[in-house]
Amino acid sequence: MDVLTITMNPALDREIIIPHFQLNTLHRVFEREKLISDPGGKGINVSMMLSKLNDTPSIAMGFLGGYTGRIISEELRKRYPNVTLNFIHIDGESRENISILDEINHYITEINAPGPVVQEPDLLHFMKLFNTVVSRTKITVISGSVPVGVPLDTYSILSEKAKESGNKVYLEARGQLLTNTVKKCCPEVVRPDMRSTNKIMGKEVESLNEYMEVGKEIVSYGAELVIISYKFKHDLIFTPEGAWILTIEQGELDESHLLGTGDAYVAAMIHDYLTTNHSLLERAKYGMAAAMAKTTYLKKEMPSLSDIEKNLDNIKIEKLD
Amino acid sequence: MDVLTITMNPALDREIIIPHFQLNTLHRVFEREKLISDPGGKGINVSMMLSKLNDTPSIAMGFLGGYTGRIISEELRKRYPNVTLNFIHIDGESRENISILDEINHYITEINAPGPVVQEPDLLHFMKLFNTVVSRTKITVISGSVPVGVPLDTYSILSEKAKESGNKVYLEARGQLLTNTVKKCCPEVVRPDMRSTNKIMGKEVESLNEYMEVGKEIVSYGAELVIISYKFKHDLIFTPEGAWILTIEQGELDESHLLGTGDAYVAAMIHDYLTTNHSLLERAKYGMAAAMAKTTYLKKEMPSLSDIEKNLDNIKIEKLD
Repeated sequence: MDVLTITMNPALDREIIIPHFQLNTLHRVFEREKLISDPGGKGINVSMMLSKLNDTPSIAMGFLGGYTGRIISEELRKRYPNVTLNFIHIDGESRENISILDEINHYITEINAPGPVVQEPDLLHFMKLFNTVVSRTKITVISGSVPVGVPLDTYSILSEKAKESGNKVYLEARGQLLTNTVKKCCPEVVRPDMRSTNKIMGKEVESLNEYMEVGKEIVSYGAELVIISYKFKHDLIFTPEGAWILTIEQGELDESHLLGTGDAYVAAMIHDYLTTNHSLLERAKYGMAAAMAKTTYLKKEMPSLSDIEKNLDNIKIEKLD
Repeated sequence: MDVLTITMNPALDREIIIPHFQLNTLHRVFEREKLISDPGGKGINVSMMLSKLNDTPSIAMGFLGGYTGRIISEELRKRYPNVTLNFIHIDGESRENISILDEINHYITEINAPGPVVQEPDLLHFMKLFNTVVSRTKITVISGSVPVGVPLDTYSILSEKAKESGNKVYLEARGQLLTNTVKKCCPEVVRPDMRSTNKIMGKEVESLNEYMEVGKEIVSYGAELVIISYKFKHDLIFTPEGAWILTIEQGELDESHLLGTGDAYVAAMIHDYLTTNHSLLERAKYGMAAAMAKTTYLKKEMPSLSDIEKNLDNIKIEKLD
């Protein structure tokens, strides 16, 4: 098995489709199809997408708890048999994210339940298991947030162990988790998660110059490839060789269809890494084409290889630096 | 084991407490205590309340399906060890009722998910099991609605089998389920479920006379005791000996606290039946006192024996006929 994905704080992503959803009202849902449940959490998403993309197997690790945790693991087993589950089962309930979709009024009303609290013995158990598993893999994807009880320097420890074992480390995170890991043991591929922040490495980024600086800073810590989403239609790419801006030239992007684009990006880059000798820049472009193809779906769903290929021609590359 | 409760269509009752709940907004719930899950469905409620009231054991039967069904049965096992579970596990998901409680705006926004579809072999399996179990019990409580796939004359068949085995049958239902059962094989105790209908035995009831007629009609089919909730503060009681009106004289009733009052009523009457030699009228009064005591709680919760006793003095009995 080549790929290991880490999801410290998995979730059960639920969608309930209710036209004309209203407050203080009883809504009866009569069709089972209006209730959708999917395993979620960024690392798990990457595992599921790799499985769909090219039947690429992976190992998924992290923490699962309670009834929700059991639903996540059973659904993964049923629907993604080539994702090997190596989760630590802990007390408490895994997160449940309920989205009530009103497609008439274009409302999304969301309720995010809290995750479990990870106790120290659970974390030690996880670290032990991680050390064993990572010695057999080539790529480690560390992605998303951590639950209460997991220290904010944990990703840097994972990154260090993975690199020691000869793994390429892909990191998608934000805030202190990102900053600590980049500074202490920088992964090979870094994609700051910009979904609910405009800060990277503790600095607000707004102008292209500010983005450029922070991208170069991450490279200076040892990253081979840094990808930063920039003003929706662009990606900024940084390697030790320079900086580029990738722009989507054609095709409509639906801003309401962004769920899972980052995970599609990472999954596609890993697929590209495992199957081609592309340059880092080409790899990033391939990831962007996958993210772009993903936006044709409302739900988080992996586009097909041919959908990704089709989108490659719509991406323009310009050297910045 | 004396008591058997039938819940054909159990539910997981979930409450999510979100102050200022709004449409088209992401709500993060940080405290686990704001998310409450309870096994539900009227027969299960009676079993849980009997257990709480006086540690009275009971057998619970019906259908459970999927993840939701498993949560219901595991929670029952964990929290009510003297409720013996004899459910048939079927394909599909048991119902999930989500109530989003906004205590600031006094809004209750509800989402009721559909139940499973019962297949014929499942129903045959249930009937076989029912015949075995009912031969060992003294009281059978048939309560609530039936899922898709269960014919509307099923309760009358259950009532017949239970009576053949010497059980006293308590029925709380509405619509065709109630009418069919009363007409084909009338249970000893009948409590029409008036929560979302003003029809009993196919007739709209509004005036006291209309209530009186339908109460007497049910007695004419063979009921020993008929209890009909009347204009919130009253219960009409019918036996072969006559009709009475029970009125709550003192104490404030909170109309938003009615969840589970009917089930508390039935559970208290059964407790009374098992432990006293009260007359039918006294038994009904005891049930009403329990329902009244229940309204001091927002949630469906069984009042204590002393709370019920306290409320007995607040009920006035007048003979009508």
